[in-house]
Amino acid sequence: MARWKKLAVFGPGLLGGSILLAARERNLASELAVWARRPEALDEVAQRVPGCLTTCDAAAAARGADLVVLCTPVGAMADVTRALRPALSPGTLVTDVGSVKGSVETALAPLLHGRARWIGSHPMAGGEMQGISAARASLFEGSTVVVTPTGSTPPDSRDEAASFWEQTGARVIDLDPATHDRLVAEISHLPHLMAALLVGVSSPASRGLAGGGFRDTTRVAAGSPKMWREIFEQNREATLAALDRLLEGAGHARRLLSEHRGGELEALLASAAEIRQSLRFSHHE
Amino acid sequence: MARWKKLAVFGPGLLGGSILLAARERNLASELAVWARRPEALDEVAQRVPGCLTTCDAAAAARGADLVVLCTPVGAMADVTRALRPALSPGTLVTDVGSVKGSVETALAPLLHGRARWIGSHPMAGGEMQGISAARASLFEGSTVVVTPTGSTPPDSRDEAASFWEQTGARVIDLDPATHDRLVAEISHLPHLMAALLVGVSSPASRGLAGGGFRDTTRVAAGSPKMWREIFEQNREATLAALDRLLEGAGHARRLLSEHRGGELEALLASAAEIRQSLRFSHHE
Repeated sequence: MARWKKLAVFGPGLLGGSILLAARERNLASELAVWARRPEALDEVAQRVPGCLTTCDAAAAARGADLVVLCTPVGAMADVTRALRPALSPGTLVTDVGSVKGSVETALAPLLHGRARWIGSHPMAGGEMQGISAARASLFEGSTVVVTPTGSTPPDSRDEAASFWEQTGARVIDLDPATHDRLVAEISHLPHLMAALLVGVSSPASRGLAGGGFRDTTRVAAGSPKMWREIFEQNREATLAALDRLLEGAGHARRLLSEHRGGELEALLASAAEIRQSLRFSHHE
Repeated sequence: MARWKKLAVFGPGLLGGSILLAARERNLASELAVWARRPEALDEVAQRVPGCLTTCDAAAAARGADLVVLCTPVGAMADVTRALRPALSPGTLVTDVGSVKGSVETALAPLLHGRARWIGSHPMAGGEMQGISAARASLFEGSTVVVTPTGSTPPDSRDEAASFWEQTGARVIDLDPATHDRLVAEISHLPHLMAALLVGVSSPASRGLAGGGFRDTTRVAAGSPKMWREIFEQNREATLAALDRLLEGAGHARRLLSEHRGGELEALLASAAEIRQSLRFSHHE
């Protein structure tokens, strides 16, 4: 028997589509529903997830759902929540997939207070891919999902959200929203910005020589500019703080190189190499 | 019939070992020889390339060779060249695999002038892997090798070196040494430095969340600190120039983000995304 009665996904992109595919494949919910702002955005998900209710009526998608997952861009979540809110019941668990958690918590917790149970989530999967066409049932297998309970999150809401993500194949980590945002600035938002800047430094001539190093260091720069602008704006302070630490490190490395302090430069490289060699990733490495 | 009578490789690491394996598999030379400074460095290549002469005597390795490929660290190439030079004949073609070409040209061209034919090469293959254990006959297939003729390089030396690399499976590009160094600073040396700095900004907590983006943007940082220190030192000016352009771009991006100039930030990201999406790599993408 499926764990959830009705799972409603808002936003049929890579993550929303993959949630629906995983829920279907793993029988996580008896009923599936998906909402999109534009009807044409529903065509492919209707084909790939037969029997899933597809609608542009937010209340119709949410009605009767015991689990709602917001998969729209972060900036659209408050509006979508206002539209679906009348159809919620107090037992409904609402979560999201936004890459930034502080601003989402601030926007959604007051809207949902007393109307449903709420907890933020961030599945760290998908990379630079976009859209329902890249969606797959296995997207979350071996990935990490952060859930972001706050002081006012009931433990059962946290446990049910964690259980849902675990059933998609992910491992779950708990962080408060501000800590989440600081950490992802370091390992996702800043690396994205640097990848874009490295592309900007390259020229057509140098790109003609580019091999595996450039391919890997800049891969994420292919991601959606609109989505990443929003991530940077939503996580401005933590991204700036991480960028300032990088600029400080770059200035130091610049001095070591220009002042012929090769031993110290090698020690800096050795520290990074030792850390990087110690990392293990669940996918592809 | 093999194209070369005797191929002598100096330095049995990833590139030297792969050259020997490719030469054996593709029957590029009738005789193979490899020199290393330490005898124990020859054990694995002796096992993997049966019949290859293995020696710590540079003159013995080079004697009778019509093709010599220097695969030692760049900083060791002048000493190795002095050691093998007495065994060269004027027809011998000498090349190398160094990641920096201006300093190698400056060091080796005078040593070899009138003693052998010389042209620099840089196979852009191998990435962060190291050592004979990572060597493979297919390493150069689909990769790019830059050859760096100068005004004093006879065309037949260039053509014979290019032909050798093409027979290992690579495509060949001609650049003068200074242009090579400027371009690789942009797409290899600067990305490496940024990868190391990004690892330095991360923390154990954030690395615990790291996914595909961090994995890819920092992968090269696992490379040999000693080798990369030498690359940075040998290509100091071009690396500093590329770093300064990156720092300028980073300062600009910082202002856009802190001054809430989201439209301009999105345009910067869109330009990078468009360029990155247009790139095609021969391997793995």
